Amino acid sequence: MNVHTPRQPSSVTTGPLPGSRKAYVTPSCADMRIPFREILLDPASGEPPLRVYDPSGPYTEAQPHIDLATGLPQIRDGWLARREGLETYAGRAVKAEDNGNVSDEALAEPCPARRAPRRGVGALVTQYEFARAGIITEEMVYVAHRENLGREAALAGAAERRADGESFGAQIPDFVTPEFVRAEIAAGRAIIPANINHTELEPMIIGRNFLVKVNSNIGNSALTSSVAEEVEKMVWSIRWGADTVMDLSTGRNIHNIRDWILRNAPVPIGTVPIYQALEKVGGDALKLDWEVFKDTLIEQAEQGVDYFTIHAGVRLQHVPLTASRTTGIVSRGGSIMARWCLSKHQESFLYERFDEICDIMRKYDVSFSLGDGLRPGSIADANDAAQFGELETLGELTKVAWDKGCQVMIEGPGHVPMHKIKENMDKQLRECGEAPFYTLGPLTTDIAPGYDHITSAIGAAMIGWFGTAMLCYVTPKEHLGLPDRDDVKTGVITYRIAAHAADLAKGHPGARLRDDAMSRARFDFRWQDQFHIGLDPDTAKQFHDETLPKEAHKVA
Amino acid sequence: MNVHTPRQPSSVTTGPLPGSRKAYVTPSCADMRIPFREILLDPASGEPPLRVYDPSGPYTEAQPHIDLATGLPQIRDGWLARREGLETYAGRAVKAEDNGNVSDEALAEPCPARRAPRRGVGALVTQYEFARAGIITEEMVYVAHRENLGREAALAGAAERRADGESFGAQIPDFVTPEFVRAEIAAGRAIIPANINHTELEPMIIGRNFLVKVNSNIGNSALTSSVAEEVEKMVWSIRWGADTVMDLSTGRNIHNIRDWILRNAPVPIGTVPIYQALEKVGGDALKLDWEVFKDTLIEQAEQGVDYFTIHAGVRLQHVPLTASRTTGIVSRGGSIMARWCLSKHQESFLYERFDEICDIMRKYDVSFSLGDGLRPGSIADANDAAQFGELETLGELTKVAWDKGCQVMIEGPGHVPMHKIKENMDKQLRECGEAPFYTLGPLTTDIAPGYDHITSAIGAAMIGWFGTAMLCYVTPKEHLGLPDRDDVKTGVITYRIAAHAADLAKGHPGARLRDDAMSRARFDFRWQDQFHIGLDPDTAKQFHDETLPKEAHKVA
Repeated sequence: MNVHTPRQPSSVTTGPLPGSRKAYVTPSCADMRIPFREILLDPASGEPPLRVYDPSGPYTEAQPHIDLATGLPQIRDGWLARREGLETYAGRAVKAEDNGNVSDEALAEPCPARRAPRRGVGALVTQYEFARAGIITEEMVYVAHRENLGREAALAGAAERRADGESFGAQIPDFVTPEFVRAEIAAGRAIIPANINHTELEPMIIGRNFLVKVNSNIGNSALTSSVAEEVEKMVWSIRWGADTVMDLSTGRNIHNIRDWILRNAPVPIGTVPIYQALEKVGGDALKLDWEVFKDTLIEQAEQGVDYFTIHAGVRLQHVPLTASRTTGIVSRGGSIMARWCLSKHQESFLYERFDEICDIMRKYDVSFSLGDGLRPGSIADANDAAQFGELETLGELTKVAWDKGCQVMIEGPGHVPMHKIKENMDKQLRECGEAPFYTLGPLTTDIAPGYDHITSAIGAAMIGWFGTAMLCYVTPKEHLGLPDRDDVKTGVITYRIAAHAADLAKGHPGARLRDDAMSRARFDFRWQDQFHIGLDPDTAKQFHDETLPKEAHKVA
Repeated sequence: MNVHTPRQPSSVTTGPLPGSRKAYVTPSCADMRIPFREILLDPASGEPPLRVYDPSGPYTEAQPHIDLATGLPQIRDGWLARREGLETYAGRAVKAEDNGNVSDEALAEPCPARRAPRRGVGALVTQYEFARAGIITEEMVYVAHRENLGREAALAGAAERRADGESFGAQIPDFVTPEFVRAEIAAGRAIIPANINHTELEPMIIGRNFLVKVNSNIGNSALTSSVAEEVEKMVWSIRWGADTVMDLSTGRNIHNIRDWILRNAPVPIGTVPIYQALEKVGGDALKLDWEVFKDTLIEQAEQGVDYFTIHAGVRLQHVPLTASRTTGIVSRGGSIMARWCLSKHQESFLYERFDEICDIMRKYDVSFSLGDGLRPGSIADANDAAQFGELETLGELTKVAWDKGCQVMIEGPGHVPMHKIKENMDKQLRECGEAPFYTLGPLTTDIAPGYDHITSAIGAAMIGWFGTAMLCYVTPKEHLGLPDRDDVKTGVITYRIAAHAADLAKGHPGARLRDDAMSRARFDFRWQDQFHIGLDPDTAKQFHDETLPKEAHKVA
């Protein structure tokens, strides 16, 4: 049933969303172009275009010049070239095992856009290190303007809107300055996942005092894989609003597919390196060791992966705590490491070698996404000793990583009923020194397979409100199969809803502008504007056109 | 574009859900059959069938004997026949205006299942009156067993599960007794919407100390209408889990369609009588008066409608409060009454005649659903003076209705950001003496037309947790058009998720049984059991079969 298609990708979805245009804004203080989307409104409304945050990259320009073989423009290259403490070097040679030892005819063509890798050799490499040294990087300037939607001053009424919200102790500013960004990163409260080898990246920030972000997952599997499909899934995800994309590939051609994705990704790309390491040892967890893992970290860091999920919190001592669970260990990385620890009766090499992992990740400014390998897989197992024991370990590791100069975020559950969500958030903030929380859902009930984007959007909106910085999407296929194109879109839009609902509730000064524009369009019966302001103009228009709406349905 | 189909309905969707069977349980203390659904699990699991609450009526029996022209069995007829204080009488003659003055050829055939109406003439007519008098009715016994899923004693661990939840002051019992039901109704905290002329009804209860319920809306419009379609929409709604159905028809044949629906509805049917009254005066709100409204109330009460939305809280003094709103008045009933008050500069006749409305509704035990005609239609208008002013009036009217012996619930918003939801619930409990709250969503953002089942499921789950007793569904077509069959199903299932998530969070003693059964099935890779335990077995199976799931997706 393998349907490998070893061709190179030829085309992806491009062009603006209906009624929108790409706008680049150059702040007065910096030579950089910050991307936004502008939604054009009916002239009769007398309203200016509505500017919205836009992670979709150049693909949504009106006439994009996309050549996947060349990759996106390297907008960070100049910044990095000027930066002291980095060196360009030859890099690790690609090995056959990197692509799953595929035969020549099954090998996906490597992406021709080769870049000589950089690595850190000086005292300041990571955004965290620069921030701690009081230095504002280009990336910090970029994200400050991005978060402000290109405004040069605070919105009128920003303070009132903040006061009207409830942010549970977050400190959202009226206006985001580069210095505010720096201070948040220095405090460990925010990260800019930006590998120095991902030069094509449009920087973005993850932290609870910024807009809530959304991650989507893509990735081939042993059963299906095609370079074209994976690149398109990435482009498709960001088109609908994914802020970062995790490549969870486990099949063949994993190295080359990742290269195509990275060279064409304007958003941070995250991976779970243990997945590829496991492929390299033939799928046998017991054959995993530090050497193959380390080699995989360097391989991926040189390619430009922006954050790694590292399940270093699954310690030998935690494994017995899962014995009485209803659903045991459901995280793939968690299961791999638990099996390794238990079979060898040995402490996890990820935990034992954590210092060395930090040293490698620091050199490329790969951010940590400390994985919750013991996240609950059911309502029954939520907030149990295994989950919280691991979270405490993650807190300990956060401090180690910070000491090593690394940026850190923390992964969270999972399956949690509504009344146990806030406890997760509060404990994470406490244990992990306010490092950004990055949660999967959580799903608030187990009884709706086929609808887990919804069971989890409820939990995601709530935990986003409570302080989670990034929400990992869940698609309708969760628990059932691999998401297709429609599922990816549904998942991303559902999570944009959750993230935006959270921003509104936190009192983010600019969040309500889009709601208000929609509400005015509704009150005026400006149908086209309603479609365009919405998260999914195509579906809204299609639904509208299916019935001639009667008067009762024309009001909000 | 009128596509009236004046034929009578011939068939509706019948048969059990996949893997399930209908079970009727007769409690040891009473001669009645309480319906449940039993999900049959893989014998290898060693688990007994999983019993779940089932509002779907006889339609989901294996061999249902459905004859729409005869109507469902009149299971309440014997109870009511024995009840003192009721009389059977000739009833109001059907008028041409009741069906929109349609021509003979366009007239939908009346449902042949005619019943001579009853009305109350004694001291005790409504469930509220019986409860206050200390009398336990058959309906109270029925719902007690229904809420317990037919158990004859409290579940083991019920107290622990309650203690593990957070119910915000609700008093959910370990085990529901008929006396507990009576006391809750007597306190005004719960209602059993059960018109004495809806003899086909399988009684259910709405109150925050019971399972959270879900309402779906159906109804024809001026543009489309067909008896068959509407009856099928009702049957389809309850198949997927709607506990009550509101018939919001505004088109022609409205009387006859309602008759077909009621005679075949095992769930309470609600209406908004002002819609039909408006049809009777040719759509001109200014021609509305007490006489046509009163006549409509009696017409619908004799047919057996179980609850009426009455927008008596929209007072003349409230209308100016909406002037500065972003989206004005968005409730259809609210707009009608505001226009009436403002044009005539006169107090609403619904408010002025509220005593008389109570007298009519009491006579048939039609429950009040006090409408929130000034509910916010946008995030911008949430929790404003107009909305809360009306809510205070609804509190005042609640007490009047109770004094008159009526059962009452209160309708709630609408569009509300997450951080303003709890204030709604708390104020409703306070102002309305803990009468059950029945909310539309609320939608937590305005920016996602096409996905408002999701924007609102977030709010619905939260307000359900905080204490709302029934959630009115929102479909993906909200703001865009009329829901079709798929939209109705999506809306109902989405709201079953919200209601169940709320039950879990409140610590309802039995809620987690279904989640735990699912989680065990997941852990054991019992795929069929997973499909069957879920809210939508068909979709889950279809999604699963679309991809050969890889190992990573087989874990929860």
